[in-house]
Amino acid sequence: MIRSLAVVGTGLIGTSVALAAARRGVTVHLLDASASAVRTAELLGAGTARPPEEPVDLAVLAVPPSKVADVLSEQQARGLARSYTDVASVKAGPERDVLARAPRPTHFVGGHPLAGRERSGPLAARPDLFQDRVWVLTPSRLTSKPAFDRALDLIGLCGGVPTVMQSGAHDETVALTSHAPHLMASLVAARLGGRSPVSALLVGQGFRDATRIARGEARLWTDIIETNAAEVAGVLTALQTDLTELLTAVQDLSVRDPRNRARSRRNLTGLLERGIAALEALPAPLTADTAHVDVTITARPGELARLLDTAAGYGAGADTVAAPVAPHGGDGPLVIRFELAAAEAETLAEKLAAAGWDVVHEDDIRDETGPALVGAPG
Amino acid sequence: MIRSLAVVGTGLIGTSVALAAARRGVTVHLLDASASAVRTAELLGAGTARPPEEPVDLAVLAVPPSKVADVLSEQQARGLARSYTDVASVKAGPERDVLARAPRPTHFVGGHPLAGRERSGPLAARPDLFQDRVWVLTPSRLTSKPAFDRALDLIGLCGGVPTVMQSGAHDETVALTSHAPHLMASLVAARLGGRSPVSALLVGQGFRDATRIARGEARLWTDIIETNAAEVAGVLTALQTDLTELLTAVQDLSVRDPRNRARSRRNLTGLLERGIAALEALPAPLTADTAHVDVTITARPGELARLLDTAAGYGAGADTVAAPVAPHGGDGPLVIRFELAAAEAETLAEKLAAAGWDVVHEDDIRDETGPALVGAPG
Repeated sequence: MIRSLAVVGTGLIGTSVALAAARRGVTVHLLDASASAVRTAELLGAGTARPPEEPVDLAVLAVPPSKVADVLSEQQARGLARSYTDVASVKAGPERDVLARAPRPTHFVGGHPLAGRERSGPLAARPDLFQDRVWVLTPSRLTSKPAFDRALDLIGLCGGVPTVMQSGAHDETVALTSHAPHLMASLVAARLGGRSPVSALLVGQGFRDATRIARGEARLWTDIIETNAAEVAGVLTALQTDLTELLTAVQDLSVRDPRNRARSRRNLTGLLERGIAALEALPAPLTADTAHVDVTITARPGELARLLDTAAGYGAGADTVAAPVAPHGGDGPLVIRFELAAAEAETLAEKLAAAGWDVVHEDDIRDETGPALVGAPG
Repeated sequence: MIRSLAVVGTGLIGTSVALAAARRGVTVHLLDASASAVRTAELLGAGTARPPEEPVDLAVLAVPPSKVADVLSEQQARGLARSYTDVASVKAGPERDVLARAPRPTHFVGGHPLAGRERSGPLAARPDLFQDRVWVLTPSRLTSKPAFDRALDLIGLCGGVPTVMQSGAHDETVALTSHAPHLMASLVAARLGGRSPVSALLVGQGFRDATRIARGEARLWTDIIETNAAEVAGVLTALQTDLTELLTAVQDLSVRDPRNRARSRRNLTGLLERGIAALEALPAPLTADTAHVDVTITARPGELARLLDTAAGYGAGADTVAAPVAPHGGDGPLVIRFELAAAEAETLAEKLAAAGWDVVHEDDIRDETGPALVGAPG
């Protein structure tokens, strides 16, 4: 088990790792080029700015992807730690550089915790930032078992969900799930630039959610995109093709050409449906096992309102009510489904049954879709 | 003031309007082509499925944009209400059709509440869906003052923030703030289709937020995009140009051509910065007046941790801590800023001051950026 840790780079991620480890009793040493960043992290109780007197068990390099290999080489030359991992969101380029340049590549395993916030810097750090979040490890052909195991220990200390992938597969996937979406959100957000304040009034929650990722630090993201440029370019090329098709359909609809209307509507609806299908295929967020509680009610006026009031009293607010499972027309019974965290579902089912409601409670699909995932390094 | 209301279309928006009005004592009559939708809304306490015996004060047409003019004509022929408004997210096309076809266009004013959820249907309805949300009215050249005033009364009953715009300006803006962003999110989401389950593990909160809007009902959104096709095509064309430039930069970076590197990085960073600037220029969401509390602390180790613990005790969690206002290096004082709802800020400032902390509390800029907005119809 890790007893000492060094964090190089006390930004959002580095400081959050340090806070999580420090709370678990690990001695944490903080290093950063910025004196105020280290000082802030220290004031937060993330560790000490004192350099370690002997090599620590593990050093976490929380620096931009393009800096990983150089910082690793520098710290290995200084003997900062017995093994190293990083938290960069791009893995293949850094791995290639590490294998080419680092003094002891066997002591390094790449890592990427899928957690972040639109805000950056040590003050945005939280010890629970990685709780229940996927944390990918990408061992290289040279990564040693001890180096891999210490990284795995760190993920455990942080409450993360360890996952193992090859660096190339990781980068191809994040280009699709993170890097290209970030750039598309930036394009959408940038289009709003220089508009009259009135347009801001028509910016709803949907726009804010859709563009939140675009608030990420510009310099860091330039480094991320450049380090994964080939994969990102591939996804953007595909998106450009998709956008061209979509634009053709929308333009046809705008000129109201009856000959193309049916086809254009089909193409537009098809795109919207493919998007919905892809999103519905995603497993529920790992943050909570969800379950559902079905309640069958008769069609007496006010009956549903009474059920919802009762349920709300047990913490199942209107947001937990899903569509009716069997919305018959006529006067047949109506089945109302509540979707909420498994633990809360248990309680709700008991309380409602006790209150005389007709309850069916089942655990949800999370057991099937939940994360499997720890593999040993190849 | 409105005493009777009819809601035509008991989906998410229609039922939410009905719930809000019913809770304020208004007699609400519910109409929908789907018997089960009306029945569900009635069971929720949104009103009665009985048709009104005499014309109601106001009828809200909660139907897709392409249906507004036809439904208005049909209901005016039946004498359902003294005046009418709609809630479609496209305003120019429906207004044109109303002026061309409706029996009494003077009794109609277009409306668009900027509220919604990714879920649809009456069971997703909430009486507070419009609380503090902008609700646009787009009076036509024929809209009468009584029709406008009744719609304004309804917005008041729903707790919305009334705004007045011309239908064309509204549509141009929502193409930019809602319709095109929705389609871009659909493109990004659709790209994930048919990928291995492993990729889903690398889908973080950022992707989920960025694509949430793409979950909206495909048929309704096809209708919305078609009804605003010209404006949406304009925004998509601009986005396609931006994407082409971005792709060129990323491709140059992927081939590591040193000659273009500086320019490509500049273009990439420039786009990211324009996106950030546009987002930072947005006023805070209208849902809460925010304020900030600044606390100056000395550099004693643990001092910041103590401040955060104390603040957390008064409801100001880590999330409310903004970047330090003056993060000096060296050992000078550090100013920590908490950003939270105005009311909570008051309390926090008092509590912290009482606890001996060095507090500066100011109301935030919301007074300047907040919505000013009711105008009379032109």
